[in-house]
Amino acid sequence: MTQDTTTLAFQTRGRGLLDITQPVRRWVEARAQRTGLLTLFVRHTSASLLVQENADPQVQADLERFFARLVPDGDRLFEHTQEGPDDMPAHVRAALTQTQLSIPLLDGRLALGTWQGVYLWEHRLRPHRREVVLHLLGE
Amino acid sequence: MTQDTTTLAFQTRGRGLLDITQPVRRWVEARAQRTGLLTLFVRHTSASLLVQENADPQVQADLERFFARLVPDGDRLFEHTQEGPDDMPAHVRAALTQTQLSIPLLDGRLALGTWQGVYLWEHRLRPHRREVVLHLLGE
Amino acid sequence: MTQDTTTLAFQTRGRGLLDITQPVRRWVEARAQRTGLLTLFVRHTSASLLVQENADPQVQADLERFFARLVPDGDRLFEHTQEGPDDMPAHVRAALTQTQLSIPLLDGRLALGTWQGVYLWEHRLRPHRREVVLHLLGE
Repeated sequence: MTQDTTTLAFQTRGRGLLDITQPVRRWVEARAQRTGLLTLFVRHTSASLLVQENADPQVQADLERFFARLVPDGDRLFEHTQEGPDDMPAHVRAALTQTQLSIPLLDGRLALGTWQGVYLWEHRLRPHRREVVLHLLGE
Repeated sequence: MTQDTTTLAFQTRGRGLLDITQPVRRWVEARAQRTGLLTLFVRHTSASLLVQENADPQVQADLERFFARLVPDGDRLFEHTQEGPDDMPAHVRAALTQTQLSIPLLDGRLALGTWQGVYLWEHRLRPHRREVVLHLLGE
Repeated sequence: MTQDTTTLAFQTRGRGLLDITQPVRRWVEARAQRTGLLTLFVRHTSASLLVQENADPQVQADLERFFARLVPDGDRLFEHTQEGPDDMPAHVRAALTQTQLSIPLLDGRLALGTWQGVYLWEHRLRPHRREVVLHLLGE
C-alpha cells in the first residue's frame, strides 16, 4: 500500500460551484491504483467541497439561490464586517457544508455515482485562488 | 495493513432516516481488524449519511420536521422542478449534510459513542434503492 | 505505513467553539510521520467538529449567533424536549455540521491553511466532557 499527495490550485470565478471532477480524476488515475481512498481538503474557510448533481445546471443555480437566502450578504446579525458584506456569510456557508471529502477507489476508479460530480464551492463574491490538498491511499 | 471494500444496497421507505448501523457493523466485524478506519460513501445526491442519536425516535422525527421547514418542498425559489417538488429540496438537504463519513476502529470495534447510530437519510418522498460504498483500512 | 490512535477528552465551557488545534497538532507531531492522513471523530451527537477561521474571534461569535437564530432553543416545532430546550437544537446543529474531519499530513505537518483552526463545537448550553477519537495513518 502506498500514499501519494498533491496540492491542486484553482482560480474561481467568484461565488458559485466549480466542477473539479476532471482534474481530480486525472491525478487519481495517473497514480494507477486499483483500490484506495482519496481525501480532498480545502485550505480555506470561505470555500468548501461538495459532491452534487452534474446533470442539470439549474441544480447548481438553485443551490446558490437557497444559500443566498439562508445566509444573506450584509445581514445585520454579523459583527465581523471589515472584510466585506460577503465574508461572514462565506464562513457560515463553509460551516454548513464540507471542508473535506473522502471518496473510495474501486477497480481503479473513484466510486462516484453516475450523477455525482466533485465541486469546489467559492463562497466569496470575487474570484479567488484556492488550494485543494489531495491524499491518495492505494495499492 | 490491508484494505477491503464492498457496496451495500439499501431499500429506503421514502423520506426519513434508515438505521444502517447493524449491517455496517456486521461487515466491519467480519473483516476481523483490530485498528483501522472505515469510510462510508453514498453514491447519490438526494440522500446522505448521518451519525445521530439512536435512543429516542422523536429525535429523528424532529430532525425531519426541522429540515422540512428549512427546505420546503415546492419552494418557488427553485427552478429545477421537472423531477418533482421534493427533488431540489433533496439536493439542498444533501448539501447541508454529508455524502461521506469516516469512523475509526478501536480494539476491533467502530469508535461510535454509546448513543451514536449510523443513518442513511433518504431525502426523496418515495422509496429508492441506495448504494453505500464501504472502504475499510485496517490491521 | 503505520496507524496510531488515541482518544482526547476535552472539558467544554458550554455552547461555543473550543480551539483544539494545539493538542491535536502536538499528538500528531509526536508521531513523527512525514506523510499521512489524520481523522478526528467526535463520539457525541450534540457536539461537532469544524475547521474555521482562527484570526478574528468575532467570526466565532457570529457563527454562534447565526446558528442560534437558525435553530432556536425551545422551538415549538420540537417534541423531543425532556432533555431541555437546548438538546434538540444541539442535535440539529450537529446534523448541519460535521461529526468527523480528515486532514492530510504533508512534510510532517497538518495541511491546514494559514487561517484554519480545528474546533470542537459544543452545542449544549452547559459544559460537557467530550471525547474526540484521533486516527493517524502515516509513514
